[in-house]
Amino acid sequence: MIMECFNRLFPINRSLTGDGVRESLRILGEIVPIRQSEYPSGMDCFDWTVPKEWNVRSAWVKGRDGRTLIDFRDHNLHLVGYSVPVRATVSREELLARLHTRPDLPDAIPYVTSYYKEYWGFCVQHRRLAEFTDDEYEVVIDATLEDGHLTIGEGFIQGETDREILFSTYLCHPSMAINELSGPLVQTFVYKELLELKKRRGLKYSYRFLYVPETIGSILYLSQHGEELKAKVDAGYVVTCAGHGPSYTYKKSRRGDSLADKAALHVLSRSGRPYRTVEWSPVGSDERQYGSQAFNLPVGSLMRTPYLEYKEYHTSMDNESLISEEALQETVRTYLDIVETLEANEIYVSNHTHGEPKLDKHGVYPTIGGQRTEEQRRRLFMISYLLAFSDGKHDLMDVADKLGVVGKDLWETAKLLEDKGLLRKANGTEPAAAAGTFN
Amino acid sequence: MIMECFNRLFPINRSLTGDGVRESLRILGEIVPIRQSEYPSGMDCFDWTVPKEWNVRSAWVKGRDGRTLIDFRDHNLHLVGYSVPVRATVSREELLARLHTRPDLPDAIPYVTSYYKEYWGFCVQHRRLAEFTDDEYEVVIDATLEDGHLTIGEGFIQGETDREILFSTYLCHPSMAINELSGPLVQTFVYKELLELKKRRGLKYSYRFLYVPETIGSILYLSQHGEELKAKVDAGYVVTCAGHGPSYTYKKSRRGDSLADKAALHVLSRSGRPYRTVEWSPVGSDERQYGSQAFNLPVGSLMRTPYLEYKEYHTSMDNESLISEEALQETVRTYLDIVETLEANEIYVSNHTHGEPKLDKHGVYPTIGGQRTEEQRRRLFMISYLLAFSDGKHDLMDVADKLGVVGKDLWETAKLLEDKGLLRKANGTEPAAAAGTFN
Amino acid sequence: MIMECFNRLFPINRSLTGDGVRESLRILGEIVPIRQSEYPSGMDCFDWTVPKEWNVRSAWVKGRDGRTLIDFRDHNLHLVGYSVPVRATVSREELLARLHTRPDLPDAIPYVTSYYKEYWGFCVQHRRLAEFTDDEYEVVIDATLEDGHLTIGEGFIQGETDREILFSTYLCHPSMAINELSGPLVQTFVYKELLELKKRRGLKYSYRFLYVPETIGSILYLSQHGEELKAKVDAGYVVTCAGHGPSYTYKKSRRGDSLADKAALHVLSRSGRPYRTVEWSPVGSDERQYGSQAFNLPVGSLMRTPYLEYKEYHTSMDNESLISEEALQETVRTYLDIVETLEANEIYVSNHTHGEPKLDKHGVYPTIGGQRTEEQRRRLFMISYLLAFSDGKHDLMDVADKLGVVGKDLWETAKLLEDKGLLRKANGTEPAAAAGTFN
Repeated sequence: MIMECFNRLFPINRSLTGDGVRESLRILGEIVPIRQSEYPSGMDCFDWTVPKEWNVRSAWVKGRDGRTLIDFRDHNLHLVGYSVPVRATVSREELLARLHTRPDLPDAIPYVTSYYKEYWGFCVQHRRLAEFTDDEYEVVIDATLEDGHLTIGEGFIQGETDREILFSTYLCHPSMAINELSGPLVQTFVYKELLELKKRRGLKYSYRFLYVPETIGSILYLSQHGEELKAKVDAGYVVTCAGHGPSYTYKKSRRGDSLADKAALHVLSRSGRPYRTVEWSPVGSDERQYGSQAFNLPVGSLMRTPYLEYKEYHTSMDNESLISEEALQETVRTYLDIVETLEANEIYVSNHTHGEPKLDKHGVYPTIGGQRTEEQRRRLFMISYLLAFSDGKHDLMDVADKLGVVGKDLWETAKLLEDKGLLRKANGTEPAAAAGTFN
Repeated sequence: MIMECFNRLFPINRSLTGDGVRESLRILGEIVPIRQSEYPSGMDCFDWTVPKEWNVRSAWVKGRDGRTLIDFRDHNLHLVGYSVPVRATVSREELLARLHTRPDLPDAIPYVTSYYKEYWGFCVQHRRLAEFTDDEYEVVIDATLEDGHLTIGEGFIQGETDREILFSTYLCHPSMAINELSGPLVQTFVYKELLELKKRRGLKYSYRFLYVPETIGSILYLSQHGEELKAKVDAGYVVTCAGHGPSYTYKKSRRGDSLADKAALHVLSRSGRPYRTVEWSPVGSDERQYGSQAFNLPVGSLMRTPYLEYKEYHTSMDNESLISEEALQETVRTYLDIVETLEANEIYVSNHTHGEPKLDKHGVYPTIGGQRTEEQRRRLFMISYLLAFSDGKHDLMDVADKLGVVGKDLWETAKLLEDKGLLRKANGTEPAAAAGTFN
Repeated sequence: MIMECFNRLFPINRSLTGDGVRESLRILGEIVPIRQSEYPSGMDCFDWTVPKEWNVRSAWVKGRDGRTLIDFRDHNLHLVGYSVPVRATVSREELLARLHTRPDLPDAIPYVTSYYKEYWGFCVQHRRLAEFTDDEYEVVIDATLEDGHLTIGEGFIQGETDREILFSTYLCHPSMAINELSGPLVQTFVYKELLELKKRRGLKYSYRFLYVPETIGSILYLSQHGEELKAKVDAGYVVTCAGHGPSYTYKKSRRGDSLADKAALHVLSRSGRPYRTVEWSPVGSDERQYGSQAFNLPVGSLMRTPYLEYKEYHTSMDNESLISEEALQETVRTYLDIVETLEANEIYVSNHTHGEPKLDKHGVYPTIGGQRTEEQRRRLFMISYLLAFSDGKHDLMDVADKLGVVGKDLWETAKLLEDKGLLRKANGTEPAAAAGTFN
C-alpha cells in the first residue's frame, strides 16, 4: 500500500510552491486528514520572504531540425527548479552554459534549483552532451513565476493532554525516492497507525504532522507557530531518507539529551538492527530550523541511509529501485515503537521504601521459593526493578534500560503495580524528578 | 581452620528461624563474640511480619513395604523448607505433585522453601523419580511450626570513633557451601582479624557484624536499627558467595559512588586478580534491603562467583567440593585490604602551597640529586604526590590511584609528612572537601 | 640556524647560578631581546633561599705520576654540580667514594649535583673505573661558591591586551641536548616568530618568556611575580625536551581543562603526528611550581620524548646526536599553531537565532543550489557551523572540533561573518559564556 501511494506521487512535479505540492497533499490526504494552509508570496518570516509561486506547463529544447532534445515531460528533473519562463533561440554556447550534468554519474539527470536568483536552465545525463552538435536551439519554458502562495500541510491528533509529539517531513523535491518521497510516506503511515492506536487504547500525547517545503517551510511555520511549539512539544522527529539501507542513522536534537533523543536511542539500542548516532549539526534538513538557537526544540531525525551518503543523492537515479516496501514499513514500525515508549513513559514513585514490600501480600508473587519458570522470573525482575528504581527520578525508560528491555514492554507491569497500590505517578514535587537526566 | 568450622556447620539444618540457626551462631561464637537477639513471631517490621518458628525432628517417605524412600536425615534439602507437620498416607499422584526435582540436574536435590504459604513437600534427585512406583506412601513430617522467635546474631568492635563499617551475612540456608556457608565463614574470620588489628595498632572505625536470615532478617534489623545505621555507617558489605571461582564480582551500593564502592574498587583494581563490577539492582541478597530507598546505605557486596551464575546454585551439588580454604582465605585478605585502606584513608591538606616545600630542610629527602635508588625514587614520588594533591579534596585513595598503589601503602608516608608538619588533616572547612568525589 | 645556536651554547658550563647562565642568556639575546635580572644569595622565596653563586675555573684529578685522569675541560659533567672548592691529596678509597658512574651505561658520564648539601665529587664513565689503580690522587677544584646572584632571563611582547600567554624554560643544565638545550632553543625561536607575527598582523595576547634555573628559579619568580601571573595568564607552557622522538607528549596543567590544555590538545589532535596526554603530576619540571596549589596557573608542557623516558637522560650521552634541526623546527611550528589558535579563539554570538539567516541576502552564499564545488561546500560548512554554534558558549575551538579542523583555520570565515553583521563577539553577559567548558 505504501508503494501504491509512492507510484501515484512520484511523477508529480513538486517544488517550494505550486500545484504539484497541493496535489501531493491531496493524495496523502486520502489516507489521513491533512489541512492545507496557504501563505502569500512576499510574506516575511524572520530573515526570509515567501517566494513567488512556480508552475510549469511545459519545457523543452529542440535542435535545428525540430527534433526534441530535452523534454520536461520525460522527467521533471530536466528543468532547473524555479526556472523563469523563456521562449528563445540560443546559440550552442549559451545552451551548454545552461546545461547541468554530473560527469561522475553520466547516466544521471542531476537535481538543480535556483530558488532565490532568477535563472533558467536544463539538466541532462552527462553522456548525452555529445548530442548537442547544432549551432542553434529553440528553447521554451512555458511556466509561471509570479505572486501566489506557498502551501503547508498539517495533520493533528488530539490526545488526552496538550503535550505534543511533532513529526515533520518535507515535500518539495520532484521525482526522487529516498530523498524525499520516503519521508512523507513514512510520516503518513505513522500518522495512520496512531489514529488506530488512539481508537484502540487512547493516546496520552497529542500529535502534530507537518508537510512543508524544506527550509523556507519550516522557517515559515516557526514564524507563525514557533512559540506554541516551544511551549508544547516534548519530542519531535524530522522524517526523511526512510526507505533505503540496512541500518539506521539517528541525528540527535541540538540539546543532545532531549526526550526525543532518549526515546529514539532507547528503542534503537534494543532493535537488533545496526544504528549510528550523529550529533546535531546545521547540515541536514529541517531539524536545522527547529534546533535554531531561539527555538532549540527537542527535534531529532531518525533515518536509514541519509542524504549525502549514497551516490544517487539528488539525481534521477534516486528512484524506486533504491527503496522497498519492507524498509519503509520497518521504519514506520520503529517510529511506532518510539511513540509507544513515549506513551508508556512515566516517572513513578514507590509506596514502599523501607525495605522491599512483601509481594505475595499484594498478590503479585509466586509463593513457593526456589523454583520459578523463566516467565515468572522475568516478571519478578520487572516488578523488583520497577519498585526499586521508582524514586521520582528514574522514568520507565531508565528502568527498562537497567533490565535490558524496551520501555513499552514495562507498560503492563507498571499499570499492575499502580493498580495494586505499590506505585504511584510522580507529581513533580519529588526531588530532582525529571525525565532523561538519570541512569 | 576455616574448613574445620565449615565441616561443623554444614550438616546443621538452618532456616529463617529455629534451633539450627542458634546452634550455628554458637559455633561461630567460639571464634568471635556474637550476641544472639530473639524477635517474637508476629512482630511487625515494615511491610513484613516475623514468621512462626520452624523446627524439624524427622521427616520421611516410606513405600508400601515400609522401605524408606526419602529421609530428612540423609540430607536437609530433602524437605521443603517451612513444610507444615504431616502424618498421612498419600496416593502416588499426590506424592508426585509434592516431589520437587531438577530435570536439568538429575543428580541434585533442589533447595525449595515455602516460607509464607502453608505447604509441605519433599525434594529428590530427578533420576530417582523412577523409584516411586507404589500406589501409596506413608509420609511423616515430625516438625513444629508455631509461635516462637527469629534469631539474629551480632558482633561489634568499638573503634576510636563511632563512624561504622558494616558487615552483613545471612545464615538461613541448610547444607550448601558457596551460598551460603562461605559468607558467614569469611565474615567471621574478617571479624577475628580485625580484633587482632585493633590490639596491634588500634582501629579508627567501629565495626558491626550481622548474621541474619536473608531478606526478613535484614528488614527486621532495619526496622529496629535502620536510623542508627543511617546515621553511623560510612561503608558496608554483604558477605556472600565468597569461596568459589578465580575472579571477584563487586556489586556496587545503590549510590554507585559510595565510600564502600570506592574502597572496594580501589583495592580490586590493584589486586592482580580479575574482577567485574556490577551495578546495584534489586536482585541479589540483603544489599537489596540496605539499599532500599528510605535507607540507601552505602552497602555493596564483594563476591567471587555469585549466586545464579553457577549451575549447582540452590541444590545439594553446592557442597564442599566447590569451595576451598585458599579461596576463602584470599577473600578474607581482600576484605582486610579494603578495611586497612579505609582505616588509612584521610583527606589531608598541605601546609606548603606556594611552590613545593624544600624537602631536605624538613628532613625527608636524599640530598645528592641525579642519582637515586629505586626505593628512594618510589618514596620521593609518594611524598611529592601527597604534598601536591593534599588540597582538602583528594583523599588518600585518590592520591594512591594517581600513583598506581593501594591506599594502605601510603599510610606510613602520610603519617611521616604529618609528623614533619608538612601535612595536616582536613577539618572539613576546606572548599568542597569530600571523599570519593574527586579525581 | 637553531643548530648553530645549539653549538655555541652546548660547551658552556651552566648551573643554578654563575657566569655560564649569563653568557648563555647573552647568546640567546642576540636572537630576541632578553632582560637579565639578578637576585642575591640568601634572599628568601617561600620555603626556599637563593643559594650561593657557583663558578668554576678548573677541576681535575691526577694520578701519582702527574697524569691527568679527569679534567673538567674535557666535559662539564665530570664535575658534580655545586662542588665546593678543594685542593687535596686523597686516597684511592676516598676518591672512589666520590666518583659517580652509571654501571648500566658504562660509556656515559652521569649528571650529578649537590646544590643544597656541601659536597664535592667527580663523574666518570663506568668503564674507566679500572684506570684508577693508584693509591693516592691529587684533586683540584678551583671554584668559587660564595654570595653572589642568581640570574633570571625574561622576554616580553606587548600585545593588544594585557591577557598573557606564558612560556617558561630552564637554563641550568650543562652540556646536555634534549634535557635541556632543546627547551631554551625552541622557546627562543617561538619568541622570534611571534615578534614577526606581531609585525605582520598584530597580536591579541601579550607574551612572557622566562629562562630560569629549574625549581629554585620558578619558585623565586613566583615569589616576586606570582600574583601578577595569576591575574594575567590565560595559558602557559613549560618548554622542555623538545628535540627528540617521533611523537609528542603533552602534560596537562593541574586544572586539567585549562585553556592551555584545550588549545594544545586541539592542535595535537589535528596534527597528524602521534601524541600522548599525561595528567599533571608533581614529577616533571617547572609546571610543578606553576601548578602548586596557591597559584594553580594554567600551565602545561608540550614535549617530544620527555625526561626519564630515554636511557641517555641526565648523562653525557644526551648530546647533539639525539636531536635534530627538523624536530626542533617542527616543535616550534606546533607551538605556533597553538598560539595562532589562541589568537584566533573567540566566543561569538549569532545575530540571527530564529531559523537560519538567508545567506545570499548577506552576500556569503553561492546561489544555485544542488551543485557546489568541494571548496564551496567546505566554506558553507564553516559558515553554517559558526552561525549555528555561536551561542555565547562555544568558542572557535569548539566549533572547529565539530568540523574536524583547527581553530586557526576558522579565523578568516569568522572575521567575514563578523564583518557582514552575522556574528558579534560575546561580551560575557551571555548565559554561561566561558571558554573551555562546552562541547
